[in-house]
Amino acid sequence: MGTSSFPLPPDVYDAGCPTRKILDLIADKWATLLIGLLEERPQRFAALRRRIGGISQKMLTQTLRNLERDGLVRRTVYAEVPPRVEYALTPLGQTLREPIAALIRWAEDHIEAVTAAQQRYDSRG
Amino acid sequence: MGTSSFPLPPDVYDAGCPTRKILDLIADKWATLLIGLLEERPQRFAALRRRIGGISQKMLTQTLRNLERDGLVRRTVYAEVPPRVEYALTPLGQTLREPIAALIRWAEDHIEAVTAAQQRYDSRG
Repeated sequence: MGTSSFPLPPDVYDAGCPTRKILDLIADKWATLLIGLLEERPQRFAALRRRIGGISQKMLTQTLRNLERDGLVRRTVYAEVPPRVEYALTPLGQTLREPIAALIRWAEDHIEAVTAAQQRYDSRG
Repeated sequence: MGTSSFPLPPDVYDAGCPTRKILDLIADKWATLLIGLLEERPQRFAALRRRIGGISQKMLTQTLRNLERDGLVRRTVYAEVPPRVEYALTPLGQTLREPIAALIRWAEDHIEAVTAAQQRYDSRG
């Protein structure tokens, strides 16, 4: 009799497996971009918002909260006037650096090939 | 004067950069799961739908079409009765195998740590 809290091996293809919820989170554009920025250094909310073109305040708040709940990001409040709040990757979040960086590199490296494919597809009429 | 169609270096953090659209696509749960399956072998629509728990027919159709438009997946119709339609990764799509596989491995390897973090967060009340 197993004592693990995961009696079945994790299977991201099973809609009922908790790994699926994690994939929902990390395979998310905003989370990917945020983790990519926080891998540089801890940053404040306003700086993150400035760096990520097109993100709303509400979406940034929600994405940071989800990442904090998942143990990937730590929110630290410094007792200054006005209070300074910084977001940083936790050690667990840092294990995501390389897979996320690889995804961002892929997008930047293959943009021309993808754009060419889109133009061929659209011109097929 | 530049002759490249990309006068600025690609920057996924710029909402106006085409790389952002690509990240929208690949940082998407269904696309991630599909590419993960197609890296095993070419597969038919019904098999893909059976393997990916929780995906609707409409969402699978739309995701496959987007991936085909982006040049990542090739759709081949074999002249049989009834016609057989198979989806496969293109050479461009195969360059995504490793980054996507790393993301899926991460989710499966770190599920216990993330679940524990969620329970701590939720019990803070």
